[in-house]
Amino acid sequence: MKNIAGLMGFREDVRVLDATLRDGGLVNDFYFTDEFCKELYRTNIKAGVDYMEIGYKADKTMFDKDKFGKWKFCEEEDIVKVFGDFSNEIKLGIMADVGRCNYKQDIIKKSESMLDLIRVATYVNTMPAAIDMIEDAKNKGYETTCNIMAVSTAQEGDIKVALDMLGHSPVDCVYIVDSFGSLYPEQIARLADLYCEMGAKYGKKIGMHAHNNQQLAFANTIEAVGDGVDWLDATYAGMGRGAGNCSMENLLGFLRNPKYNLYPVIKFIEEHMVKLKEEGATWGYDLQYLMTGILNQHPRTAIAFTKENRKDYSAYYNELTTQD
Amino acid sequence: MKNIAGLMGFREDVRVLDATLRDGGLVNDFYFTDEFCKELYRTNIKAGVDYMEIGYKADKTMFDKDKFGKWKFCEEEDIVKVFGDFSNEIKLGIMADVGRCNYKQDIIKKSESMLDLIRVATYVNTMPAAIDMIEDAKNKGYETTCNIMAVSTAQEGDIKVALDMLGHSPVDCVYIVDSFGSLYPEQIARLADLYCEMGAKYGKKIGMHAHNNQQLAFANTIEAVGDGVDWLDATYAGMGRGAGNCSMENLLGFLRNPKYNLYPVIKFIEEHMVKLKEEGATWGYDLQYLMTGILNQHPRTAIAFTKENRKDYSAYYNELTTQD
Repeated sequence: MKNIAGLMGFREDVRVLDATLRDGGLVNDFYFTDEFCKELYRTNIKAGVDYMEIGYKADKTMFDKDKFGKWKFCEEEDIVKVFGDFSNEIKLGIMADVGRCNYKQDIIKKSESMLDLIRVATYVNTMPAAIDMIEDAKNKGYETTCNIMAVSTAQEGDIKVALDMLGHSPVDCVYIVDSFGSLYPEQIARLADLYCEMGAKYGKKIGMHAHNNQQLAFANTIEAVGDGVDWLDATYAGMGRGAGNCSMENLLGFLRNPKYNLYPVIKFIEEHMVKLKEEGATWGYDLQYLMTGILNQHPRTAIAFTKENRKDYSAYYNELTTQD
Repeated sequence: MKNIAGLMGFREDVRVLDATLRDGGLVNDFYFTDEFCKELYRTNIKAGVDYMEIGYKADKTMFDKDKFGKWKFCEEEDIVKVFGDFSNEIKLGIMADVGRCNYKQDIIKKSESMLDLIRVATYVNTMPAAIDMIEDAKNKGYETTCNIMAVSTAQEGDIKVALDMLGHSPVDCVYIVDSFGSLYPEQIARLADLYCEMGAKYGKKIGMHAHNNQQLAFANTIEAVGDGVDWLDATYAGMGRGAGNCSMENLLGFLRNPKYNLYPVIKFIEEHMVKLKEEGATWGYDLQYLMTGILNQHPRTAIAFTKENRKDYSAYYNELTTQD
C-alpha cells in the first residue's frame, strides 16, 4: 500500500504534459483551428501545465500534406504563426515516430526553433533507430523522451535490454506507454519499478502515457505517480485515439501541487471540447475499445468498428476472439 | 505492490453482485420492463454472476407507488411474477434503507420469499438502527450485508466504532461504499485494510460498491479485490445513479475465475442497455460528476445539472466551490 500521506503532499519533480493536439489529432486528422490551438496554449498556462505536445514531425514523402492538418507535420513556420505571439511560457514538444520521420532534415536546430522537446516513439525492436534519433535531437539541443510503445506485448527480457540501451543514451525521460489500454494498475506498478530502477541508475526521468480502453487511463496514471513516475501525459476531455487518454481534468483534480489549476481546464472543455464532440469528433471509452483492451490488441479494428457506426458488439467480439 | 501472480489466479471466495435493477433503477425510477428483467436474470446465469440485487424495499407510506416502477418496492407477488419461472439459480437480494423501510412488516420470512439477501444501507451515525434491521432479517432467515454509505465523509474513529458494532452483529458481509465516487485507490486500500481486519477478527466478508465520478469505479473495485475484498458490486454498462457504477463488462473481463463469462454480458448490453440509453436514460461519467467527486460532495446537484441539460460547467463549478 502506498503512503496515504502522499495524497496530500506532492513531488516537485512531477511534470504534466498536454498531448491534446498530438494524440487528439489522431481523432480529427489534426484539423484543429488556430483559435483552438491558441486558446489551448493560454489555458495550459493558466492551468499550470508544463509541456504541450503539439503534433508529429511526419515524413512529407510518406504522408500527403493535403490529407492532414498542419500538426501532422509541425513545420516551424506554422508553429511560429500560431504560437509565436506567446513568450515561451510553456515548453513545446513534438512526437517523431521511428521510420516515419525524416528527422535529420526536418528537425532543425533548437536554436532556430520554438520547440523544446523531441519525443521519439518506438517499439522495443526498433530501439537502435530510436537512439539514433535521440542522439540527433540531443545534438541539436533538445530535451528528449523515448516513448516505448505497446509494452504490453513486449517480452520483459527485451524491455530490460531496451531500458539498458536507453540508460546509456542521452535521453532525458523514458515513457511507459500502454498503447492498447490493456494494463492493470498492478502491472503498471511492476513496470514502474523496472523503469524507475533504470532511471535511478542512469539519472533518467520516467513518464506515463495511458489509454482508456478499460477505463483505467487515469487510475494507471495515478498508480504510476505513486510509484515514482514524474512525467504524466494527459489530454483535455481525454481526447485521443480510440478510447482516448488520461483526462487532464481528472489528473489536475488529483495533483496537489498548488501550481496546477482545474478551473481553466473546465472552462476550456465547456467552450471548446464539447463543440468538437458535437461537430462529430468521436473518442472515448466504449465496449469495442474495452474488448481490444482486455484482449491486448491494437485498437485499429475497434476504431474501424466505431467509424462504420456498427453496434453489433457481440459479433465484433467473435471476430476478435477467432483463433483460426 | 500487489503480487502480480494474483492477476492470473483467482480467489474462490470472490462473489459478483449485479446491482443493475437497484442502482440503475435510480436512473429510470425503476421502470424496467418485465422482459428486460427476465433477460437480465438469464444473462446473469450465463455470465456466472452470483447475486442479483433487484431493487429496494421502500416504505409505501413514504413513497407513492404510482410514481415508481415495481422494483422500488419489490413486493413478493411482483418478484414471483417476474422471476418465479426460474429455479433459483442466482441468489436474489434487495436493499433496505435505514429510516425508509418498514422492515418489520414488509420483509417477510425467508421461507415464504424468493429473496435470499437483505442489504441494509446506512450512514455511520444510524448504525444502531441498521443493526436492528440486520438482526430482524437474520432472524427471518436471510443472508445480510451492511452497506456503510458515504465513508468518504465519515471520521475514521466513527468508522472503527461502526465496524466493531457490526463485528458483534450477525451480519454476513460489510461493504465499503464510495457513495460520492471521491476515493482514490490508495484510500480504498487503506479502508480495505481496516474493514478486512474486522472481517478476519469476526468472520465477516467484506464488499466493495464503487461510483464512477472520477472514472475510478472499476479501478477501485480491482484495488479492493487485490486487498482481500470478496463481494464486488457491478452493473451492466455501469448503469447507476449519476456517474454510475463499476461496469460488469470491465469486471468480468478482469476476473480470472473461469465460471465468469464476458460474452453474454456484451450480448445483453448490445440488445438492451444501448436501447435504454437511446430511449433517454442518462448515466455515466461526465464533468459535473467529476467535480462532485473531486470535492467529495453528494452528486445530487450534478444529477440536477444533468436533468436540466445544463452545459455551463464552469458556472456550476463556481456554485459547488462557493464557501459562503
